[in-house]
Amino acid sequence: MNILYIFAHPDRNSFNFAMKERAVKVFNERQDSVQNSDLYEMDFNPILRPEDFKQRKYKQFFNPFLEQLNAVKTNGFSEDIRAEMNKVNWADILIFQFPLYFTSVPAIMKGWIDRIFAAGFAFNPVKGEVYEKGLLKGKKALLVITAGADKKMYSPDGLHGDINELLRYITHCTFEFTGMEVLPSYIIYETNQLSEEEGIDELEKYERFIESL
Amino acid sequence: MNILYIFAHPDRNSFNFAMKERAVKVFNERQDSVQNSDLYEMDFNPILRPEDFKQRKYKQFFNPFLEQLNAVKTNGFSEDIRAEMNKVNWADILIFQFPLYFTSVPAIMKGWIDRIFAAGFAFNPVKGEVYEKGLLKGKKALLVITAGADKKMYSPDGLHGDINELLRYITHCTFEFTGMEVLPSYIIYETNQLSEEEGIDELEKYERFIESL
Repeated sequence: MNILYIFAHPDRNSFNFAMKERAVKVFNERQDSVQNSDLYEMDFNPILRPEDFKQRKYKQFFNPFLEQLNAVKTNGFSEDIRAEMNKVNWADILIFQFPLYFTSVPAIMKGWIDRIFAAGFAFNPVKGEVYEKGLLKGKKALLVITAGADKKMYSPDGLHGDINELLRYITHCTFEFTGMEVLPSYIIYETNQLSEEEGIDELEKYERFIESL
Repeated sequence: MNILYIFAHPDRNSFNFAMKERAVKVFNERQDSVQNSDLYEMDFNPILRPEDFKQRKYKQFFNPFLEQLNAVKTNGFSEDIRAEMNKVNWADILIFQFPLYFTSVPAIMKGWIDRIFAAGFAFNPVKGEVYEKGLLKGKKALLVITAGADKKMYSPDGLHGDINELLRYITHCTFEFTGMEVLPSYIIYETNQLSEEEGIDELEKYERFIESL
């Protein structure tokens, strides 16, 4: 199995980093292939800009959607985008691990989605290539989340509401939109409050979860 | 009325830019005060990093939440964050205008939210200062969105689903979480398909909407 592990935490001493290392260890042990996109480590540029395209087709105005459709045909994406697209093409499963910032991915990961899941590459509404016909069909996607809030806050009658409903703009409108099958999100709550013992326990649980993939 | 207009489109020839200019014109004509945060123009840094803090309280690990709580007390935020926080403090209403990327804000705007709506500044769960007691209580927030998809796709029985439900992670879990009152989102669909005439018509409609605020 080919795993692309997209990771967004700046600190190698973090609990998040320990989780990622644990997952990669499991994959290596069973001889799965892993490629990492450690976004902070890569100093990944999250901002979609005109410079993303080697040559612009429409110069009077900047329309990312139209430029992306053109760049797919002309191999016209900037090198950093192309490199990530190659990883996506190679992968059977995409794992996105991040601390939840405002019930969403950190900006650096949002930018990875904005720039890599380009029109014509991941989906193409002009040709009806969305959802069941999305261009990443056959791949799986998984969110691995550490949240500061507690589980009650993110329950259906909690203050925020049901986290799985709240995340549908990613799981459904982004991942399923591109044709990917979405695995149930793996969520750890109150991550800031974990004692050392609880942290060790959570790492064990995560290792067993990764083994089950 | 003091308006903070947070804008995320890189092209001054865009329809989005024309909308913003129209809104600012209305505000100026009626002698409201406007401050702009034109994020691409400012080359705003969207990535929350340890460098956001002049001095770190917890050096063994990087926990943004704890550093933010500390930075509020010590005036320890980097200058670019402090400048935006000053604008937020000044504003009666925050308008976020952007093209919808994957049913969400572009990464550059997600980063503005991640970095500016800091713990201890916009909300403080440790003190129960969330939702009705959120620290931005008394202010209003408004999303102004241009979408590529059509209205049917974002209707309750459409392929994506009800856009207002999908955006609750922003309108509820982010804006209402900080205590702000959220105005109904202003959404233009199929923006890429607008003819010149339809574009002119939409700008007129937007101007009338802004007049109604």
